[in-house]
Amino acid sequence: MEGRNLFFLMSIILLLIFTFLNLPSPLSHTTDQLLDCTTYSPWCSSRKPFFLRQPENSKNHYADFPNHPLDPLTIGEIQKVKKIVNSIAEFRIKGCVLHSVVLEEPEKEVVLNWRRGHRLPPRKAAVVARALGVVHVLSVDIETGRVTRRETGSYSGYPILTIEDMISATSAPFANSDFNRSIIQRGVDLADLACLPVAAGWYGKIEEKRRVIKVQCFTLKDTINFYMRPIEGLTVLLDLDTQQVIEISDGESIPIPKAANTDYRYSRIKKNKQKINLLKPISIEQPNGPSFTIENNHLVKWANWEFHLKPDPRAGVIISRVMFEDPDTGKMRNVMYKGFTSELFVPYMDPSDAWYFKTYMDAGEYGFGLQAMPLDPLNDCPRNAYYMDGVFVAADGTPYVRSNMICVFERYAGDIGWRHAECPITGLPIREVRPKVTLVVRMAASVANYDYIVDWEFQNDGLIRPKVGLSGILMVKGSPYVNMNEVNQNEYLYGTLLSENIIGVIHDHYVTFHLDMDIDGPSNNSFVKVNLQKEMTSSGESPRRSYLKAVRNVAKTEKDAQIKLKLYDPSEFHVINSNKKSRVGNPVGYKVVPGGTAASLLDHNDPPQKRAAFTNNQIWVTPYNESEQWAAGLFVYQSQGDDTLAVWSDRDRAIENKDIVLWYTLGFHHIPCQEDFPIMPTVSSSFEIKPVNFFESNPILNIPPNSPKDLPICKAAASA
Amino acid sequence: MEGRNLFFLMSIILLLIFTFLNLPSPLSHTTDQLLDCTTYSPWCSSRKPFFLRQPENSKNHYADFPNHPLDPLTIGEIQKVKKIVNSIAEFRIKGCVLHSVVLEEPEKEVVLNWRRGHRLPPRKAAVVARALGVVHVLSVDIETGRVTRRETGSYSGYPILTIEDMISATSAPFANSDFNRSIIQRGVDLADLACLPVAAGWYGKIEEKRRVIKVQCFTLKDTINFYMRPIEGLTVLLDLDTQQVIEISDGESIPIPKAANTDYRYSRIKKNKQKINLLKPISIEQPNGPSFTIENNHLVKWANWEFHLKPDPRAGVIISRVMFEDPDTGKMRNVMYKGFTSELFVPYMDPSDAWYFKTYMDAGEYGFGLQAMPLDPLNDCPRNAYYMDGVFVAADGTPYVRSNMICVFERYAGDIGWRHAECPITGLPIREVRPKVTLVVRMAASVANYDYIVDWEFQNDGLIRPKVGLSGILMVKGSPYVNMNEVNQNEYLYGTLLSENIIGVIHDHYVTFHLDMDIDGPSNNSFVKVNLQKEMTSSGESPRRSYLKAVRNVAKTEKDAQIKLKLYDPSEFHVINSNKKSRVGNPVGYKVVPGGTAASLLDHNDPPQKRAAFTNNQIWVTPYNESEQWAAGLFVYQSQGDDTLAVWSDRDRAIENKDIVLWYTLGFHHIPCQEDFPIMPTVSSSFEIKPVNFFESNPILNIPPNSPKDLPICKAAASA
Repeated sequence: MEGRNLFFLMSIILLLIFTFLNLPSPLSHTTDQLLDCTTYSPWCSSRKPFFLRQPENSKNHYADFPNHPLDPLTIGEIQKVKKIVNSIAEFRIKGCVLHSVVLEEPEKEVVLNWRRGHRLPPRKAAVVARALGVVHVLSVDIETGRVTRRETGSYSGYPILTIEDMISATSAPFANSDFNRSIIQRGVDLADLACLPVAAGWYGKIEEKRRVIKVQCFTLKDTINFYMRPIEGLTVLLDLDTQQVIEISDGESIPIPKAANTDYRYSRIKKNKQKINLLKPISIEQPNGPSFTIENNHLVKWANWEFHLKPDPRAGVIISRVMFEDPDTGKMRNVMYKGFTSELFVPYMDPSDAWYFKTYMDAGEYGFGLQAMPLDPLNDCPRNAYYMDGVFVAADGTPYVRSNMICVFERYAGDIGWRHAECPITGLPIREVRPKVTLVVRMAASVANYDYIVDWEFQNDGLIRPKVGLSGILMVKGSPYVNMNEVNQNEYLYGTLLSENIIGVIHDHYVTFHLDMDIDGPSNNSFVKVNLQKEMTSSGESPRRSYLKAVRNVAKTEKDAQIKLKLYDPSEFHVINSNKKSRVGNPVGYKVVPGGTAASLLDHNDPPQKRAAFTNNQIWVTPYNESEQWAAGLFVYQSQGDDTLAVWSDRDRAIENKDIVLWYTLGFHHIPCQEDFPIMPTVSSSFEIKPVNFFESNPILNIPPNSPKDLPICKAAASA
Repeated sequence: MEGRNLFFLMSIILLLIFTFLNLPSPLSHTTDQLLDCTTYSPWCSSRKPFFLRQPENSKNHYADFPNHPLDPLTIGEIQKVKKIVNSIAEFRIKGCVLHSVVLEEPEKEVVLNWRRGHRLPPRKAAVVARALGVVHVLSVDIETGRVTRRETGSYSGYPILTIEDMISATSAPFANSDFNRSIIQRGVDLADLACLPVAAGWYGKIEEKRRVIKVQCFTLKDTINFYMRPIEGLTVLLDLDTQQVIEISDGESIPIPKAANTDYRYSRIKKNKQKINLLKPISIEQPNGPSFTIENNHLVKWANWEFHLKPDPRAGVIISRVMFEDPDTGKMRNVMYKGFTSELFVPYMDPSDAWYFKTYMDAGEYGFGLQAMPLDPLNDCPRNAYYMDGVFVAADGTPYVRSNMICVFERYAGDIGWRHAECPITGLPIREVRPKVTLVVRMAASVANYDYIVDWEFQNDGLIRPKVGLSGILMVKGSPYVNMNEVNQNEYLYGTLLSENIIGVIHDHYVTFHLDMDIDGPSNNSFVKVNLQKEMTSSGESPRRSYLKAVRNVAKTEKDAQIKLKLYDPSEFHVINSNKKSRVGNPVGYKVVPGGTAASLLDHNDPPQKRAAFTNNQIWVTPYNESEQWAAGLFVYQSQGDDTLAVWSDRDRAIENKDIVLWYTLGFHHIPCQEDFPIMPTVSSSFEIKPVNFFESNPILNIPPNSPKDLPICKAAASA
């Protein structure tokens, strides 16, 4: 019990430090404290966004007045839901936990028909509750107070972990004396220990039928960057509900890497010897303010775009009802009903005992939105950004606020929207250049060590560019080696020796986007593969022997649209409205332009790949089905892959002339290198959703060029 | 002769208009006028760059004082070269033409050993002259006035076209009455005609042994965007030297597309009905000025980077002696000796009579740099950009200035250099975010219709990102169709009907970069393929069945480094210094991170692909050889592919532990769409050259975050 005491001592010391710094410290929180938003964290204080078009609405933008059918649940609505659920005896019991409380979106048709000024459709909450080990999916009508639907999960897996689950896993092992002994035997002070729930998956071996989780620990001694100081080889299998340690896997003792050079905080390293030639201030400036407006905190209007934007505990950011005002007709045209990061898959490439289970699905297991922390103004997003808060729900149903969770800003990067200068041959007096300005919606999720920066970038020419940036800290492995010259030729390290005793283990990242495209409405959409095929000319036809021919194939069923990208068999991938043609008779459409094309190569029968079978192809198209939102299935934690996008798609349903959903997976292979230590420079990949014969012509023909009179007059702040 | 008169009439009218507008009009220039810089063009006026670190040097930055062994020839030096060449009887004759006059760079070793303050190595010019049909490659010692080397070309092909060649081809057809008759028969007024040299290639059919070129024409009537009004099916084969029409290929008459909606000039379309919601001013501001310096107009220093930058008539931009100041040691470390766009290949995918020959190699045929027109401040490049002029040479050896040909600017796009926030699980008070600022070097080449925007972006973490943007105007084909419903199911259009009577023909773009990597110096560099292979676990080894294993293969010879990218057989591609290891024993290196991965699929025996065989692989590695600079060979115009990168590489020379050059090809497949009409929104692709164990750790650990006090105080210019 000495360890336990030390842990509490450490907690108290940390708490004092954090209190002094006025910073959040949930490490030692009880659930009750956690749910008291103001106690929990200064992030929770109802800080106002510093930009709002309509300041009269800004005083409490997550107030009790939803304005749009897709607006997330307000604090008041969540409180009502809590009451309603608590009114049911079966959920009033101790140990009943709400894993998810979010808006149950009205049927698509209802949302599409709704117009501003109309009465809102009935507000409902989708609730995932667990009581006595049984998972219930409820539909709660907030106005009537009735539970209108109630199902128990029929698939493998458990709902998303609650923050309370995750936090409890960080302290539960301390109650086990074997665990404490093992730590002390390794020479680590229990007071320095930081434990994390490192894997939630199912691995094919045993079916647990209980909520088990693997916990591994690090030492915080002499560094805040404990990720670089793993207690390698020690894994605790924990029962999350009983908080009992089921099994301790205690491998051979590996030296714990030193703390030196691991801290990355500016306050600690500014006296560092690193010779960096610093830059003078640079800023994106908008002297007349930004050009976007956000109505009622969720409806974003910029250039010819309009869309609904909301935070979500699982997806992070949900973009809905994306429409573009046609420059020719002035009419709002539908482009996408809903776009979001449906799931992630992050398999590490080390099959050894303490590593094989590190195959994360961060949205369905940990909550991509729940892990999105407040953005840092001026660093995470430039000046003039608008910040949107998230309202999330604790395990007991109490709402809390994650402030500054999403930012929206305009971006000018010195890029060119379009240009043409006549060449020296013609010498015509032409030089027409238009600068490119875009709108970015950003979130940054800190899924333990890794930081995912998710951007949705909108161009005024109708293009949408989802982008994922990876930064943060590597998940590393302790190693006996301090130099590669000690490693036997035949020994494989599963990664790169980054620093003394630290291996950066090879891993992949996959981010699967759900893109419910509605090209000029939900009906009559089709997926077309425009394949570029090498065609040989016939003898005497031409001095040319070959050319590329575009061959269009409309996908009839889902299997026609299971796409593995091939560089030597290239295609364009269009979603068209088969009922609508342009003036000269082309089907109107959008195409997905792949980028970040790394493909998962794991064996399809490997348990992690079965669970993440949605990464078996880079593109999939499914018929719209409101229950098919989450690529890894509704319940992901310990799922066995029986409810994934791959399973749905293999039903091979008809997708021609239908309301269809396109799924695209961005992929990264990551072989770590020393530059990733102790914190990684951002690596980004993006893909594009791009108009293709959607407009009659270039939709930004008459944007004006910049002229000196448009630009601001600035002086240095220091000289002010 | 009536047509000829009309052409002159048109020229006079245009000249009057251009004179009135104070804009350049080389259309009607004689060679003499062309070479009189101030008459030629207001671009030539010796405008001073508005930023120079050392203003005392700014009065004439292309003056007679080279400061670095790699500085381009100055105006004075070119004048000396002209005199020297003219002193040789054989080149004094009428009709002798200088196709290229550039610095002959000193031997690499000499440049590497040169230090600031040292005497410059002897200044030499590399001259390509043609006299009496024979091409001579000369080395001219500017100080001694001697020609030190003189060779006649031993490969197929002719040197780069001169601007005078190109301009003469625009008017020569008018001297042919058959041509004029054909134009008039098509109902086109000769006064409205705009002809262009549209293809310079060899097509396997006949070996001409003379400088022939294909010329096609457009009508300028009612639009400046004549590219959208092709006289389809009429092709003139011209002898460039005699200016004689050899052959007129006159296909069936195709309706000329209408002028409506083709103009894109802001002055003409602002009354257009396009409904675009305009944006408020936005700008990148640097109240204390930029952080880069440019010494003596060519040596760029920014963050920890230093490199030499110069314009080149063929490559456009050449970046040399790229070094990074190591943040740990403070020492300058070599990264790349030389990087530039070595060649382009743009094959159109239409084998028909008037199109099969459109397979451009813009650097070697037309001069990528010669076609780079003055950049438009505030639109092509943001405020605070530095502009560099090019000094080029006319056919008779007279120097002229292409002003504002390259810009250099700092870019802040709201991106994140690195970040980490602790997650709700640990709740540690960590949120460290660093904004990303980069340096961009930009050129925009207007190769007739197309505009190529070439960026070299440098990050302060050691990454280099070459990027190519495509904008400008499509090369289109006239068509009898005004709607797709008129097209027979079995008919293939070779492209997309963009507007009435206009087909955007499918084509590819390849841009091949020469990257002479010198990782910590020129010696002992090796190319390593780090292949990620799927590895199955053995039975009972692990609950995991598979993982990806990194397998390193050092390329011994060139054929080991002929790389076709494969998504399902992924690799990293490193250039390492085999003699240098990091502290923990990893070889120091850089990797090329592919992007823009479209691959050429034309048949290898197709004449255009033979000439452009450098696109047969995406990556090649050759041993350094100063004569192997141009991927399509020294002479490209009508080349037959006997001097390409593919030929060199097939010698299969040793490349391990050597001075090696890496070649990377960015590729684009372009199926035009209506949004590309009448001018294309920019499409970009990039790849990365990225440190991999080059630094001991993250090299930008101690850059500071932004704080409000750093940012400028701005007000709207209008309110000033």
